[in-house]
Amino acid sequence: MNLVWGFFLYTLIGFLLLSIPLFHNRSISFLDNLFIATSAISTTGLVTVSIFNSYNIFGQFIIMALIQVGGIGYMTLTTYYLIFTTRKITHWHSKIIGTEFTLPNSIQIRDFVKSVIIFTLVMETIGAILFYIAFIDSGMGSLKAIWFSIFHSISTFCTAGFGLFNNGFESYRDNTFINTIISVLAIAGSLGFIVITDLLYRIRGKSKQISFTTKTILYGFILLLSIGTLLLYTIEYASVLGSSSSLMTSFFHTMSAMTTVGFNTVPIGKISLPILLLITFLMYIGASPSGTAGGMKITTLTAMIAILKSRLLGQKKITFLNRLIPFERIYVATSIFMLYTSLIFLFSFLLSLSENFSFEKILFEVASALGTVGLSTGITGELSNMGKILIIILMFIGRVGVLTFGFALLRQKIKDSNGTIQDDLAV
Amino acid sequence: MNLVWGFFLYTLIGFLLLSIPLFHNRSISFLDNLFIATSAISTTGLVTVSIFNSYNIFGQFIIMALIQVGGIGYMTLTTYYLIFTTRKITHWHSKIIGTEFTLPNSIQIRDFVKSVIIFTLVMETIGAILFYIAFIDSGMGSLKAIWFSIFHSISTFCTAGFGLFNNGFESYRDNTFINTIISVLAIAGSLGFIVITDLLYRIRGKSKQISFTTKTILYGFILLLSIGTLLLYTIEYASVLGSSSSLMTSFFHTMSAMTTVGFNTVPIGKISLPILLLITFLMYIGASPSGTAGGMKITTLTAMIAILKSRLLGQKKITFLNRLIPFERIYVATSIFMLYTSLIFLFSFLLSLSENFSFEKILFEVASALGTVGLSTGITGELSNMGKILIIILMFIGRVGVLTFGFALLRQKIKDSNGTIQDDLAV
Ligand SMILES: [K+]
Ligand SMILES: [K+]
Repeated sequence: MNLVWGFFLYTLIGFLLLSIPLFHNRSISFLDNLFIATSAISTTGLVTVSIFNSYNIFGQFIIMALIQVGGIGYMTLTTYYLIFTTRKITHWHSKIIGTEFTLPNSIQIRDFVKSVIIFTLVMETIGAILFYIAFIDSGMGSLKAIWFSIFHSISTFCTAGFGLFNNGFESYRDNTFINTIISVLAIAGSLGFIVITDLLYRIRGKSKQISFTTKTILYGFILLLSIGTLLLYTIEYASVLGSSSSLMTSFFHTMSAMTTVGFNTVPIGKISLPILLLITFLMYIGASPSGTAGGMKITTLTAMIAILKSRLLGQKKITFLNRLIPFERIYVATSIFMLYTSLIFLFSFLLSLSENFSFEKILFEVASALGTVGLSTGITGELSNMGKILIIILMFIGRVGVLTFGFALLRQKIKDSNGTIQDDLAV
Repeated sequence: MNLVWGFFLYTLIGFLLLSIPLFHNRSISFLDNLFIATSAISTTGLVTVSIFNSYNIFGQFIIMALIQVGGIGYMTLTTYYLIFTTRKITHWHSKIIGTEFTLPNSIQIRDFVKSVIIFTLVMETIGAILFYIAFIDSGMGSLKAIWFSIFHSISTFCTAGFGLFNNGFESYRDNTFINTIISVLAIAGSLGFIVITDLLYRIRGKSKQISFTTKTILYGFILLLSIGTLLLYTIEYASVLGSSSSLMTSFFHTMSAMTTVGFNTVPIGKISLPILLLITFLMYIGASPSGTAGGMKITTLTAMIAILKSRLLGQKKITFLNRLIPFERIYVATSIFMLYTSLIFLFSFLLSLSENFSFEKILFEVASALGTVGLSTGITGELSNMGKILIIILMFIGRVGVLTFGFALLRQKIKDSNGTIQDDLAV
């Protein structure tokens, strides 16, 4: 409940701030301000109006602040829950849980949140500097480049996908440097604090081995990213994606869907049906449960595959990579899978009632909103009021998590820090 | 394995028989004969060529025989497995299992199969007589009416949905009598031997109460049928379905999707997107695990809802209507749900590669084939060869069951009559 109300409160504050006409370049409707506020706090990036044309620099700054609050808030939550619900997965365990008897717990938590914030700011600063070099290099004016590099660095690392260009990153489709900056920042943000610091500790030789959870997340992510890129490349490299840079654009859009950053370098509305379905599937899965990404999460997929595998092999116990998966975790994964799939179908059905777009475009928009991805075939701005409200609800549910939202609806109380709600984000 | 090979063998025999040019009115391709044979044995009813125009009366008779074999075979299997995997669900238990120590088991089984066959033939005879009256009444010639009434009665009771009219039952849209005959026959066939005889025993006062399984199936079926009919009626009664008879046509198509008989009285290709999605959903669920219907089954849906409900209420044990559902059953349901959903998405993706139809039409065709329903937006005849092969595979998997097919792929052996495979059909 606290989580749901917290996100709701921040969305409300964001909406009220964005509603002040002082921050507008032109008149913006009540519903559009609510849409943009929800999209920013949930780090989705779907927009019903052009950010650059509609809001002045102060309005843009507020949107950036909402993204930052949403991104850091979510990464702190996921990291925190991952540490508290999983058995000793990282060296952070000893730092936070291991010492909780010697130091007051509140100090540990404060230190930990500080670490996450520092991690975020360091990454975003490096990102902004690199973006600045790239933008200047491509002929942008110095002052504009400063603002654009800060905004896009924060938007990328928080996997928000908000942009100040009206055509996304389509002008930079063949710019290898910009493709690399976005990919590295978004992957870092989506994998999150624990996975990245675990990896850094390992590389620097400070720890002997990477934890099981980090390994599962990394292997799953790399595997899906490779398969997705190759499929995209194979299916349609000759058509929309262009011939010279198709492997890069294939990788970019697979990465964009999986990290749920949601930037694009080709017009999504012109992509063929099979590719659209492939990207829909990647958005549906999402990535790591440890960072800012949305989607059903790789770990949920892993648990579902484990159930199926054990069932088909006639095993009584559910295992994955020879590790026993507890019943609790299995039921959480099953519930998420069922709720997530049902929500996508239900909202696609409702949007088919309120809108007049083809089904694949509606399905794509729904998967994008629930996965907090932000990719769109271009229908967002043309949605009816009912359609906008439905997408707002989806972005909100997508961020707080389908199970947490289910709990909130049933007015279930959070018991304690080892209670039920945490499992939602850990799986 | 036996089940998979059995269906495969019957399909092969059907294909060889249908390939004999003696039974053709005109030249029919290799692939089309295979498609029709698979469609008939699996009681799906999707057709790539017109049955009436392409096959002469002998060919039509072979198709009818394949439907009968497929229908009786499947109903015997489902009934048999339901009795052996569920704890004392019906008075048939005492007849078959209860007396197995006093009489040789083979005699019991033979008696039981005989009962199922007699049940089928009685129902089909009544159906044929009623169809004959209705066809004569609507002006059909006497000889034609005899043949048409036998063919459609068998096709309806086995929920096959094969028809000799090239436009389905569109000419009889407002014919209440024909609508009623089809509905009663298809519902009886899809609910199956156990549910219907349980119900008859109860009505005649021979038994004191209906078993829990029969109750769950009946309540679930009636609930879904009512909701489906009302939704269909509410959403679009004014448009395609016509104004005077819309409640009847709404009921008819909900019934047609749920029993997976697959007859239609309005052109499905002209139905609006929301209705199409609703029917897709109904075909996805299907009906009872005790009769000839396909789909994921009401009982699987029940188990999934039970998991979700128990999870959201924070219960450790999975219950439904205050009855504990065993872990085994839960994992079977989860596996079916995941496999079924994945297959629909995977085959829609593959058909989006091989065909040039809109996504909703592809999704509809895939759900119809896997659910052995046979409703179509009209694309079946226009499918590419690859598309036809994909639909043939889907109809086959749909009939043997997704889990059984998974077992077969993994070359898992059936252990005994209380082993693993049976659960697939019982859930
Ligand atoms: K995003
Ligand atoms: K059928």
